[in-house]
Amino acid sequence: MSERIAAVILAGGQGARFWPLSRKAHPKQFLSLGESGESLIQATVSRLEPLVERERIVVITAEHLVPLVEEHVPGVQILAEPFGRNTAAAIALGAQWLSSQGFDGVMFALPADHAVKSSEKLIETLERAVAVAEADDSLVTIGIRPERPDTAFGYIQRGDSRGEKVFAVRRFFEKPNAQRAQQYLDSGDFYWNSGMFAWRPSVFLDALKEHLPEMYREFQQVQFPEKRSDVSQVVEELYDKIESISVDFGIMEHAKNVQVVEAADYGWNDVGSWDAWAEHFERDRDGNLLKGDCISLEGENNIVSSSSGRFVALVGTEDLVVIDSDDATLVCPRSRVQDVKKVVQFLEKQGRKTLI
Amino acid sequence: MSERIAAVILAGGQGARFWPLSRKAHPKQFLSLGESGESLIQATVSRLEPLVERERIVVITAEHLVPLVEEHVPGVQILAEPFGRNTAAAIALGAQWLSSQGFDGVMFALPADHAVKSSEKLIETLERAVAVAEADDSLVTIGIRPERPDTAFGYIQRGDSRGEKVFAVRRFFEKPNAQRAQQYLDSGDFYWNSGMFAWRPSVFLDALKEHLPEMYREFQQVQFPEKRSDVSQVVEELYDKIESISVDFGIMEHAKNVQVVEAADYGWNDVGSWDAWAEHFERDRDGNLLKGDCISLEGENNIVSSSSGRFVALVGTEDLVVIDSDDATLVCPRSRVQDVKKVVQFLEKQGRKTLI
Repeated sequence: MSERIAAVILAGGQGARFWPLSRKAHPKQFLSLGESGESLIQATVSRLEPLVERERIVVITAEHLVPLVEEHVPGVQILAEPFGRNTAAAIALGAQWLSSQGFDGVMFALPADHAVKSSEKLIETLERAVAVAEADDSLVTIGIRPERPDTAFGYIQRGDSRGEKVFAVRRFFEKPNAQRAQQYLDSGDFYWNSGMFAWRPSVFLDALKEHLPEMYREFQQVQFPEKRSDVSQVVEELYDKIESISVDFGIMEHAKNVQVVEAADYGWNDVGSWDAWAEHFERDRDGNLLKGDCISLEGENNIVSSSSGRFVALVGTEDLVVIDSDDATLVCPRSRVQDVKKVVQFLEKQGRKTLI
Repeated sequence: MSERIAAVILAGGQGARFWPLSRKAHPKQFLSLGESGESLIQATVSRLEPLVERERIVVITAEHLVPLVEEHVPGVQILAEPFGRNTAAAIALGAQWLSSQGFDGVMFALPADHAVKSSEKLIETLERAVAVAEADDSLVTIGIRPERPDTAFGYIQRGDSRGEKVFAVRRFFEKPNAQRAQQYLDSGDFYWNSGMFAWRPSVFLDALKEHLPEMYREFQQVQFPEKRSDVSQVVEELYDKIESISVDFGIMEHAKNVQVVEAADYGWNDVGSWDAWAEHFERDRDGNLLKGDCISLEGENNIVSSSSGRFVALVGTEDLVVIDSDDATLVCPRSRVQDVKKVVQFLEKQGRKTLI
């Protein structure tokens, strides 16, 4: 544990792709989606424990989720966003906050809702990232060796070697189509963009100044007051004035001092969909994942979860996702799990607030 | 209305293909599956009203369903079977009962759980069937002109013409495969076997004597007592001794004096599956049938029913059946609706009585 390491955890997401279990009032990061019983945010904080003291963990979340964060991960610092302004703003908020506290070590920026199989290998990777970020005053991104031509992730093309499993970044790529994803996989030069970063707050804020100067200017004018309720007021005024852009698109794709640290094989999973969620579990001999009171008769490779106490029966289906909750049921082919958020959009349009 | 016409309605089925809405304690014939609000058995009795007095309607049902029959169709005669013995026994029971009451007109034998669009055309057809059954002392079966190469029905091949839309029967065929079903449809000589018959009880009992002589012998020895509870006792002793065989396989396929009356176009539907059920309803522009609180986003030709008050969302599915009930949900491709009964078989094996 070192006073020179902090972490900014992004925990403001809605997890709409995890409807109907994830809801606005209780989104994915607070769900226990694996076997452990720990929520995703609890697991995220636990994994950092060997490296980061809890008091130097800053959780950026939505105002209405603050009580849940306090309940799940007591002892962390919490900054509430009045509304989402994408990852550049959220990370800048964490960096500025740490900077205003006089912190000049290395901060991680990472999502609250990813999963990892080996904490040890994650820690080993993060330590390497810290070393690179400290030594070179660079923006360090953590790249995952791709296992398949996945189209749900951004990719990072590596450039020259800068050390043991450290490379310059040639280019960031948005989520590719299937053909490009296969090319990336085949080339051996590409990593999955894990959305996990390491840098000094000052280095990040310098990059913000260069690539998102208007956002930087607004952040520079912020004086954080003592009381947290007053902080929220300040953040709200700030957020009203800044643009909504991702850190990848707004900064990483343009910055020159970016290096990628290749992750050790720690079994990363972004838990980005019901399909990704299902990878955490053993299947039956027909490839079905059956959680709760459910069966699949003469069917293959289905993902079924019943958490309502009700019985769910599939007959003769393949590659189908069926998620049953107390007040709603989702049915979707595995190939369409990225579109589950459209149900939430539909319900929003209909004003059906109890279901979202 | 004529004293020379009676009806035996077969209402002992379990409707396992309508799980999870149909249950042993409340099977399909007591469900209101159309828009009308009438249960299937109520609609069946209502349709007969212009032709058959209610007191000459005999409903054959399972012992535990007697109270439901009394509630749904008060005023009919009810005979309880201790357990199912297939259609030959059930129809013989009705025929013997009517015969023992001195009835020597024409009886219909028909299922309680089919649907018809035009009662008028049904009545016109039944009147023709009565005329043929009376005049020729024959076994009359009602044939439906096939609309498609359906593999869920038995077929009847017609022979020589015996009058206006009346033919000798060349042969009965069991449910065909798709190729044969197409041949039957193309030939123009084939009807769907509707399971609806007309004959004098004495003519049917003569056919029973010839083709199922052991069953006939047992039925001949039966003396029905006055009290209905005593009748049940007699039927139970009888049913212990007789075989379980369908009227088609046991009698119709062998009898020589069979004629088929071509049904007027009365919109027959055997409501034999969720797919057949869905034909009663208008679809949305994407071909979806959506009953209750449910949606299909970017999906086509789905059949969805939510009767639990819960919300059901389909995303990107095609030709899927999703039936949501208070304690269970079914998910099944439309091509597999005949296999829904396997869920009930599974639950029986598991001893999960509350779900069947």
